[in-house]
Amino acid sequence: MASTCKYGTLTSGLIRSLTEIVGEKFILTGEGRENYARDEAPHSISHLPEVVVKPAGAKEIADILLLANRHKIPVTPRGAGTGISGGAVPDLGGISLSLERMKKILEIDEDNFCATAEAGVSLNEFCSEVEKHGLYYPLYPGEMNSSLGGNVATNAGGMRAVKYGVTRNFVLGLEAVLASGEIIRSGGKYIKSSTGYNLTQLLIGSEGTLAIITEVTVKLIIPPGSRELLLVPFRTLSEAIGCVPAILKENILPVGIEFMEQDIFQMVEEQSNKRIPLQGYPAYLLIMLESEGIEEFHTQAECLTSVCLKNGAVDVFVPDSQRAKRNLLDIREKFYPTIQRSGMLDIADVVVPRSQIALFVEKVKEISQRFGIKVVAYGHAGDGNIHLHPIGSQKEYPRSKDLMVALYKAGISLGGTISGEHGLGKDKKKYLPLAASPEKLALMSRIKVAFDPNRILNPGKVID
Amino acid sequence: MASTCKYGTLTSGLIRSLTEIVGEKFILTGEGRENYARDEAPHSISHLPEVVVKPAGAKEIADILLLANRHKIPVTPRGAGTGISGGAVPDLGGISLSLERMKKILEIDEDNFCATAEAGVSLNEFCSEVEKHGLYYPLYPGEMNSSLGGNVATNAGGMRAVKYGVTRNFVLGLEAVLASGEIIRSGGKYIKSSTGYNLTQLLIGSEGTLAIITEVTVKLIIPPGSRELLLVPFRTLSEAIGCVPAILKENILPVGIEFMEQDIFQMVEEQSNKRIPLQGYPAYLLIMLESEGIEEFHTQAECLTSVCLKNGAVDVFVPDSQRAKRNLLDIREKFYPTIQRSGMLDIADVVVPRSQIALFVEKVKEISQRFGIKVVAYGHAGDGNIHLHPIGSQKEYPRSKDLMVALYKAGISLGGTISGEHGLGKDKKKYLPLAASPEKLALMSRIKVAFDPNRILNPGKVID
Repeated sequence: MASTCKYGTLTSGLIRSLTEIVGEKFILTGEGRENYARDEAPHSISHLPEVVVKPAGAKEIADILLLANRHKIPVTPRGAGTGISGGAVPDLGGISLSLERMKKILEIDEDNFCATAEAGVSLNEFCSEVEKHGLYYPLYPGEMNSSLGGNVATNAGGMRAVKYGVTRNFVLGLEAVLASGEIIRSGGKYIKSSTGYNLTQLLIGSEGTLAIITEVTVKLIIPPGSRELLLVPFRTLSEAIGCVPAILKENILPVGIEFMEQDIFQMVEEQSNKRIPLQGYPAYLLIMLESEGIEEFHTQAECLTSVCLKNGAVDVFVPDSQRAKRNLLDIREKFYPTIQRSGMLDIADVVVPRSQIALFVEKVKEISQRFGIKVVAYGHAGDGNIHLHPIGSQKEYPRSKDLMVALYKAGISLGGTISGEHGLGKDKKKYLPLAASPEKLALMSRIKVAFDPNRILNPGKVID
Repeated sequence: MASTCKYGTLTSGLIRSLTEIVGEKFILTGEGRENYARDEAPHSISHLPEVVVKPAGAKEIADILLLANRHKIPVTPRGAGTGISGGAVPDLGGISLSLERMKKILEIDEDNFCATAEAGVSLNEFCSEVEKHGLYYPLYPGEMNSSLGGNVATNAGGMRAVKYGVTRNFVLGLEAVLASGEIIRSGGKYIKSSTGYNLTQLLIGSEGTLAIITEVTVKLIIPPGSRELLLVPFRTLSEAIGCVPAILKENILPVGIEFMEQDIFQMVEEQSNKRIPLQGYPAYLLIMLESEGIEEFHTQAECLTSVCLKNGAVDVFVPDSQRAKRNLLDIREKFYPTIQRSGMLDIADVVVPRSQIALFVEKVKEISQRFGIKVVAYGHAGDGNIHLHPIGSQKEYPRSKDLMVALYKAGISLGGTISGEHGLGKDKKKYLPLAASPEKLALMSRIKVAFDPNRILNPGKVID
């Protein structure tokens, strides 16, 4: 529908009005716009916005939207542009609304363990400031240059979800600007609320299609102990995945449990001078723990070693130095860039019930064989979120699209869904009908219209 | 608007159709309907439904709603009827849709640590079944006869929110029937999802006004250790509240931290043979802990005792027997019935940022004096949720309405909101405009219409 929607023209008069709102220094109509034409999605078709505006705050955004709504101009919000689903690509031209100037950390509240910041602040800056106050924000979506608002818009997850959950679980309140130019606030410095519809939770993960998130209040925790690692090899992926419930039944909640197979380790070794300890096993779990001191870690490691060995593990590797630990984490962090350099055709982050991971990866291998396209799979064994990357030469790209459909269908047939943490953006939007019934799609569409009747907000993303 | 909406008439033809759907045994049109005319809200005006239907599952509910929607008949869903905001009162007559037959526990999934049940199951039955499987559902909204679906519909909270949060934090997926009779599923056995709008989170806390929740999947945890208590007296409430951040900064996350003042203890003592330990102090914190064994508890108790004494506590009482612990919990559980017997005029469960509790209670006392109506306040110091009860004779009831407005305004002025866990139902709906801007109310109203264009679902509740 969005594509058949009639949008208005961004006339020179409108550009003059936008200039008056944000100031001449903060509007681009010529050069520089190319930096706002894409995000970090591979193969996403970039598209130049007609104009880039960089408002200083919610009030300016309200004025911009008032104008855009009146004249039906598409508005694509943009945080740090680190998304990988094409969510910030101004597909239909119009206005790219960049939050890059809205980086203020407004309050770190040490009594109520929460912080409020403008949506454009980078996760990096936000976390360092929080830590200066003796508190901690544990979400780690893997990209510390992402913006806090972007994390909220996509409900970013990451490697620490077993213990901490996802962005949704930490957001207490939001300020947002509606398409009509109205500024609303939702939630506040409290966990409990049963006071009308939870707009906070609805806006989280809506990828800028319902409103522009301008300010975020998140819950903080006290800083955790030191991070420790266990690398556990298995004879089969199925045994590795089968071990996870046994680990989680101990009274030690890991921060994360990652799974990986031999292939990704080999790729990392081929492309770097990194060497993996305990080489040559078909599958591994990487268990990340938090411990208050070495004594607690020894108790935890002893307990989990025994559990893993009882549940099919061949061995357990405990890095015995900071360097060995760093080496292991570096290898994990290299998965994505290694795959990127290997001819990555696409990205998927299917989520399935965690007990189904092994079965899902089996199906992935069948599909990979059927299409004759290599697919690397690894990810979050503790929460069922699997990263999948078809790899090959450019000529295989068109065919990889059908492979993607097959991957998604396999995940959904096992009780899963399309995206665990990346969001749909424009690239994955077409797959949503695989996971959502026509009734649900129609309902989401009505919700979209309830917020944004002229469909000016991030058109072409998530839902029509 | 709801009240000016034109509803249809429940003709004998329609009642025949409803009878065909649920079967003669499961429809009431005469006697017995009085049991569906109210919930447990004090002073809520009861209203007889024209008909009570007791469907066996989502399919029957879909058929009922299809009919009701076509003929614009109000439908008031009902779980266990234990709500205290009038949410299940069929204000406009029509159909009372009772989920009392939908009590099946469909699956307890030990690998994925989750369980799925029909919405009508009681929390009591659900929790015992879960525990049989070695797992645990930690939500405790204080009423174990409430239904799981009712908990979801109101986003029930309770005394354990400091550690576990509220119902919203445990729901992974839902099945629900839309007003149009369409059955949708949302979420699943996974924590991570960034796949379209989060309908699960939107339906949680919507009090039956958006859809009828028929099935719930919740996250489970491994059973916690034994529950332990510390009772900590202070010279002022302000000192007690001021101590909370210091407690939470230790590496011991209490399950809950409750505050209470002398008056409520005196009331309990006057009405029962219970005696409170460490009598005669103006204010107390009751700290609830979970410990793996006595050794851990001793370490925790020692640490928290030292923190409390350093932060204004006069003393720390640690019950030294199961009986002493039981006595203390019994006293806490008696607060509500004691107040009920003392001429409770109303109930509020305002939530404020937890650092503002003392200031809020001070304002409550000023308001109480100004109106000449006693107000008892106690509640959840760890999460800012305060229970307030104006007490007096029936002749003070009309005046207590203005007092309620003053209480809500005071809470909102401190960054809080109307209801932390009870929901708005019909009784508190009128206060929503105190907390939500006209823009936000209008948006909620458009969301309501996106789900339920004929406004048949729980009309007169939450929002028009």
